[in-house]
Amino acid sequence: MNKSNLKSIEATIRSIVPADPAWREKARNRIATLTMPPWALGRLLDLAVDLAAMTRSLDPPIGRRAVVVMAGDHGVVTEGVSAFPQTVTAQMVHNFARGGAAINVLAKQANARVVVVDAGVAGDLDNLAKSGAILSRRIAPGTRNIAVGPAMNREEAVRALQIGLELAAEQSDSFDLFAIGEMGIGNTTPSSAIVSVLSGLEPQRVTGCGTGISEQTRKRKAEVVARAIEINHPDPSDPVEVLARLGGYEIGALAGLILGAAAARKPVLVDGFISTAAALLAQGLCPVATDYMIASHRSVEPGHDAALARLGKQPLLDLGLRLGEGTGAVLALHLVDAAVHILTRMATFNEAGVSGGNL
Amino acid sequence: MNKSNLKSIEATIRSIVPADPAWREKARNRIATLTMPPWALGRLLDLAVDLAAMTRSLDPPIGRRAVVVMAGDHGVVTEGVSAFPQTVTAQMVHNFARGGAAINVLAKQANARVVVVDAGVAGDLDNLAKSGAILSRRIAPGTRNIAVGPAMNREEAVRALQIGLELAAEQSDSFDLFAIGEMGIGNTTPSSAIVSVLSGLEPQRVTGCGTGISEQTRKRKAEVVARAIEINHPDPSDPVEVLARLGGYEIGALAGLILGAAAARKPVLVDGFISTAAALLAQGLCPVATDYMIASHRSVEPGHDAALARLGKQPLLDLGLRLGEGTGAVLALHLVDAAVHILTRMATFNEAGVSGGNL
Repeated sequence: MNKSNLKSIEATIRSIVPADPAWREKARNRIATLTMPPWALGRLLDLAVDLAAMTRSLDPPIGRRAVVVMAGDHGVVTEGVSAFPQTVTAQMVHNFARGGAAINVLAKQANARVVVVDAGVAGDLDNLAKSGAILSRRIAPGTRNIAVGPAMNREEAVRALQIGLELAAEQSDSFDLFAIGEMGIGNTTPSSAIVSVLSGLEPQRVTGCGTGISEQTRKRKAEVVARAIEINHPDPSDPVEVLARLGGYEIGALAGLILGAAAARKPVLVDGFISTAAALLAQGLCPVATDYMIASHRSVEPGHDAALARLGKQPLLDLGLRLGEGTGAVLALHLVDAAVHILTRMATFNEAGVSGGNL
Repeated sequence: MNKSNLKSIEATIRSIVPADPAWREKARNRIATLTMPPWALGRLLDLAVDLAAMTRSLDPPIGRRAVVVMAGDHGVVTEGVSAFPQTVTAQMVHNFARGGAAINVLAKQANARVVVVDAGVAGDLDNLAKSGAILSRRIAPGTRNIAVGPAMNREEAVRALQIGLELAAEQSDSFDLFAIGEMGIGNTTPSSAIVSVLSGLEPQRVTGCGTGISEQTRKRKAEVVARAIEINHPDPSDPVEVLARLGGYEIGALAGLILGAAAARKPVLVDGFISTAAALLAQGLCPVATDYMIASHRSVEPGHDAALARLGKQPLLDLGLRLGEGTGAVLALHLVDAAVHILTRMATFNEAGVSGGNL
């Protein structure tokens, strides 16, 4: 099973092609005709051009959008790295299912469907899965403690990636665009470890306060991250190994979802620090997949900037968010909409009878 | 007429009261009960608190929104400070009326009504005014050249303010919130002059490339700004004088609109550099009016940061915009919506059965 799964991942990766520079050029030419000074809407126009290149269209389809929230638990919480107890992961999944969380509220505003996936939550979510409120893809009830050994074995890491890949394949006929988010008490710790290994930055540099721990706890958390890297010493050039030794099930599933979306040439709005750690794994597996990623926001986690720099992405928003769930990604969806509307709905200089500039 | 206008402005200013700290506190308490870690949505929550304090409500009314685009022409264009000919101001007003401009597209997305006002355009807009497509409040067909003398006399400056004040009073039953924008070829030049005088920064520091002039033209433009300040030497403590000597009709009208909105306790989303210059004039006339201003974005104009700092505002977006028209303000409207939705639609820890943190 492992081998065939790995083969299907490799096949997906091989099918990913770069965004199309010819459509980039077509979008630039269209924008030059619109009734505004050259590039006067700045990064909104950069985004419009990126979307045209991803989707091979001057009217990029983005109407049907999902925010996929992958949930998982983390053995490392026994090290006291989070302000919240592990039970909150399952409680928040129930909250997602009832529509009471921030992601429900913001996704509704952005007209995005919330798709919640149990990739490895410790609590009991059977009723939610049976009722269809969430998708059950649980690998195990949480990872093992990375401070003392690997988070999961290599087969589980491949399965985590596969969860996302398959979901993207199943859903790519239903959705034009994916936003990604996560829920998992303790998951900034494995994310910091992944970002440290893949960026080469010290654990102290890339470990932050997560949901709101004290500076004292943050220092201890950074030591846990350092220990996890020392004990597990993954090879940075092998993203599956990095995921297996330091990761989370939901992080692997998000990396897989990004790859699956890129294979389907669908834009992916990456949320905050944890989603960006998943994006780095996806980049490691397939550098060209970054063409389909849109960095939605810069979070307050100190490692996020380094992770975004490694992706080569500048975030659209900078609002001091540190919630996850995909909240930053769906907030940025309004800017994606704006970019497409500008590309498709404005009058040209000719149509409007407006004189051009002398630039 | 001048004297009675001035009296009515003074009466409006006297009626402006600060945003209410008690409602700020109530909003903070409400947010603390919602299912997320403390202040995990950062500046979105700051915005929610500000809106509650402005509107005295935990469900701030924001559904009925207008973006008021004030248009005016500028005698200083004869100095060659803009990349576009003066005729473009009237042409763009026609474009607004037909719905083809960026502000039309982005306002529609944000569900905001576009209200276009001729405060002093040089071209002929009679047909648009007669058909009701725009509001005609024209003081004169453009200001005089500030490089050789005052833009307008003091009576005209008072009338410009009055345009905005009256519009806010007329429309405050119809709208819950105002976004502001402008159109006027050459109007970054008077704005740079106003910001220089009110911030104390050198003209070279606060004069940018506007719609896209070359660096050589920008330097000459900064010299024009310096000359305008030298010749007109307005008293920075007298905002009406600053407006009269350096301003534009649309800039004064926007300042008046802000004051009128503040008097009606309605939030005002301030757009880019020119709108912020108007906000500085409003602040000079009534410091407490800043409580009702929301800075929507940081534009690429180099003087914008200084102007925002003087207002004491941090912008919500930073997207390299330099278009005006109110485009940045309506883009930020989505964040205003998000802030209110978070305040009103999320489940509490109790409702959701989610455990609190140990922070």
